[in-house]
Amino acid sequence: MKHFISTKDLTTNEMFTILEQAEQYRRHHPKFQHQLFAANLFFEASTRTKMSFLVAEKKLGMETLDLQMESSSVTKGESLYDTAKTCESIGANLLVIRHQVDDWYQDLVERLPVPIINAGAGKGEHPTQCMLDLLTIYQEYGYFNGLKVVIVGDIKHSRVARSNAQALHTLGATVFFAAAPGFEDTTLEFPYITIDEAVEKCDVLMLLRIQHERHDGGQYESESYHEKYGLTIEREQKMQDHAIILHPAPVNRGVEIASELVECNRSRIFKQMNNGVYIRMAIITTLLKEWGMYDDNLTKKRNTPNGIK
Amino acid sequence: MKHFISTKDLTTNEMFTILEQAEQYRRHHPKFQHQLFAANLFFEASTRTKMSFLVAEKKLGMETLDLQMESSSVTKGESLYDTAKTCESIGANLLVIRHQVDDWYQDLVERLPVPIINAGAGKGEHPTQCMLDLLTIYQEYGYFNGLKVVIVGDIKHSRVARSNAQALHTLGATVFFAAAPGFEDTTLEFPYITIDEAVEKCDVLMLLRIQHERHDGGQYESESYHEKYGLTIEREQKMQDHAIILHPAPVNRGVEIASELVECNRSRIFKQMNNGVYIRMAIITTLLKEWGMYDDNLTKKRNTPNGIK
Amino acid sequence: MKHFISTKDLTTNEMFTILEQAEQYRRHHPKFQHQLFAANLFFEASTRTKMSFLVAEKKLGMETLDLQMESSSVTKGESLYDTAKTCESIGANLLVIRHQVDDWYQDLVERLPVPIINAGAGKGEHPTQCMLDLLTIYQEYGYFNGLKVVIVGDIKHSRVARSNAQALHTLGATVFFAAAPGFEDTTLEFPYITIDEAVEKCDVLMLLRIQHERHDGGQYESESYHEKYGLTIEREQKMQDHAIILHPAPVNRGVEIASELVECNRSRIFKQMNNGVYIRMAIITTLLKEWGMYDDNLTKKRNTPNGIK
Repeated sequence: MKHFISTKDLTTNEMFTILEQAEQYRRHHPKFQHQLFAANLFFEASTRTKMSFLVAEKKLGMETLDLQMESSSVTKGESLYDTAKTCESIGANLLVIRHQVDDWYQDLVERLPVPIINAGAGKGEHPTQCMLDLLTIYQEYGYFNGLKVVIVGDIKHSRVARSNAQALHTLGATVFFAAAPGFEDTTLEFPYITIDEAVEKCDVLMLLRIQHERHDGGQYESESYHEKYGLTIEREQKMQDHAIILHPAPVNRGVEIASELVECNRSRIFKQMNNGVYIRMAIITTLLKEWGMYDDNLTKKRNTPNGIK
Repeated sequence: MKHFISTKDLTTNEMFTILEQAEQYRRHHPKFQHQLFAANLFFEASTRTKMSFLVAEKKLGMETLDLQMESSSVTKGESLYDTAKTCESIGANLLVIRHQVDDWYQDLVERLPVPIINAGAGKGEHPTQCMLDLLTIYQEYGYFNGLKVVIVGDIKHSRVARSNAQALHTLGATVFFAAAPGFEDTTLEFPYITIDEAVEKCDVLMLLRIQHERHDGGQYESESYHEKYGLTIEREQKMQDHAIILHPAPVNRGVEIASELVECNRSRIFKQMNNGVYIRMAIITTLLKEWGMYDDNLTKKRNTPNGIK
Repeated sequence: MKHFISTKDLTTNEMFTILEQAEQYRRHHPKFQHQLFAANLFFEASTRTKMSFLVAEKKLGMETLDLQMESSSVTKGESLYDTAKTCESIGANLLVIRHQVDDWYQDLVERLPVPIINAGAGKGEHPTQCMLDLLTIYQEYGYFNGLKVVIVGDIKHSRVARSNAQALHTLGATVFFAAAPGFEDTTLEFPYITIDEAVEKCDVLMLLRIQHERHDGGQYESESYHEKYGLTIEREQKMQDHAIILHPAPVNRGVEIASELVECNRSRIFKQMNNGVYIRMAIITTLLKEWGMYDDNLTKKRNTPNGIK
């Protein structure tokens, strides 16, 4: 694993290794004994993902570079490759990037001599979110095989849906979608059920956020959406005792989920955020080890990973 | 003291304890021997308060998370509670918040399992500013009882006036207001005097900033304001020898104070900023100790203060 | 050297000392054993310069304060002096400033009791960029005397051209300019040659960025500019074998340089960025030592460099 771009690139074995590593890091984690720099380039708004990476990096003892891309050279028309290559030249040992283009990483992984983590790619993928969702399920059940997971909501505009459906399928779970008319994505081959079927059937109810900011306009009516397609208090009561609720957040309270349910007993929403830190630590250490920037004695193996002439 | 929201919540004894602690920290301060994260959420523009908190946290050895709230999930419509809960879930051990709503903290202090510091609340309070003003007076006089303090300027729009008048009164000082017509706040029961009475009578002249950005429009004329209600060079000469000048900054030079007086002998304006760091260190350590995240051996007592399920 | 404002203030000896120091820091650098704060105040967009300073400071073990000046008190109308004095009062031991005014530093160096580094001054100077360019040339040739350096492009709007021409001239290099009509700066006394003469004659071809954002409007046509005045693939082939290409970046690919040449064998563009970190470390340590904040045992000599009353 040289980069972390898509969960599709991971074998089942690699996924379980990362999950186990993250679980271990919840209790105890390493701290590098040499100085390593992580550059975090977020070209799209982010609170939780960026903060989660910053905390993960700091917990590992890394130096963090938090680039506010709105107020940077990008406004001078620089390409993503040139910005990323600049970070690497200046000393970044790891690049964490979120960008609005669906496959921004293609060019970069071929040309840059440092590991790259995909922190969100347009309407494409969001694989670290996927891994933290998997971790939350894994903590609950200890396995994926045969679990019924229903992904509910704005499938069409969701990079989370894409990554998660594929990864859960690979791990043996049975994946369903539930979506309001117009929110389906017909390019993904998973069966659609209704939200009412979903709540009764699922072991895991994975809600998605309505991506207001990606819709071209034409607001749906929140209240009627909630009644027809959201997780209302009535629907939650029909869930199986052991079933849990996930949501990648930020939550639109009263739209995809009733406000009262955000912190209910079966909600794992804030636990997901907590898990995000540990899963990112596991991904970072896996990559840095692969690139020879860190070994089990926590010391550096190579002095200059960067290809400066 | 579980949170630091308003000076009204503090006993006289608690105030003096913080003042003494801050004085001690000017000379020598502790550095935590375990990793603690402070999240700084500023929803309103700030240079000095935010920087002061960052320096205070770093001097204590804390990791700092500096959230640019303009470019965050808040633009996706997330509530303050959800953002704050997210920070806590991701690992923040302390939340420092400035927000434009006057009582943003009500909901949070009841529901979040981490200490919260009010770094400014709309037109409500700004209690850390108050404490640093108190520290500056305390360094000068060593007591508050019977001191004549005049708070001058835009009382109506000032959260500093509110906090300071109340706290100084509690500590035994005699508080007066001086304000141009329209800048009075009739909800606060302190006597009004003229600026000319103020300069002759005061031991401490506490100037306020004209809050241009909170006025709905209709600029007053700066020059005539200065002549009529500001601290001119002539007025400064009528002050008692021992009297000092405070201002929370940023200063409107030539409006509330003559530019030449900003760094005059009796000005403590930049000393206030220096004091801000130490008073915030004292507040932070007091809270962390109360929550069991730090003891006198500088080690952690509890492993996970956060209530992650 | 009490501040680092202009390369014009440096003797030849001082320049070589910084270059040698930077070269040494590439291999091994000190880390301060006491806490020192660097405040980075960028009033203009910057990726690489700001990041380079942050990395340099962190490599030296300094605490960094990265002020987003757009969202700060400056929007409340505070003067640069007051903002800088605030940083110093709050604890900054070093100020790194970029500002749109050509001579923003005049007032500050006289009045502030901390070292100041000019990280870019309007259309004036950009001396740390100059020093990293010198370092890149020095690494290549080991001397400057008699080297033919051609500075090519938007001379008129470039603060890099100004600093570099003067410094290279002082060090004994022969400096030429090449510029499209309207891009000349007649206030600087260096001979103009054509881009075609430049490529054949130079030991160092120093390209400048077209400063779109400083032009009042009236876009030139990129393609025709490239053919007439840019470094095309054809022109590059006419360069001497040993000649190298520099560019301060961000690069306008296909305008001042063909995209294919940005990482060609004779390009040192990304090496310049790498050098920027080491040159800034050398400048920072030189200043801090001069101010008595650091000695060769890496310990602090003075406790409070700041002039707080």
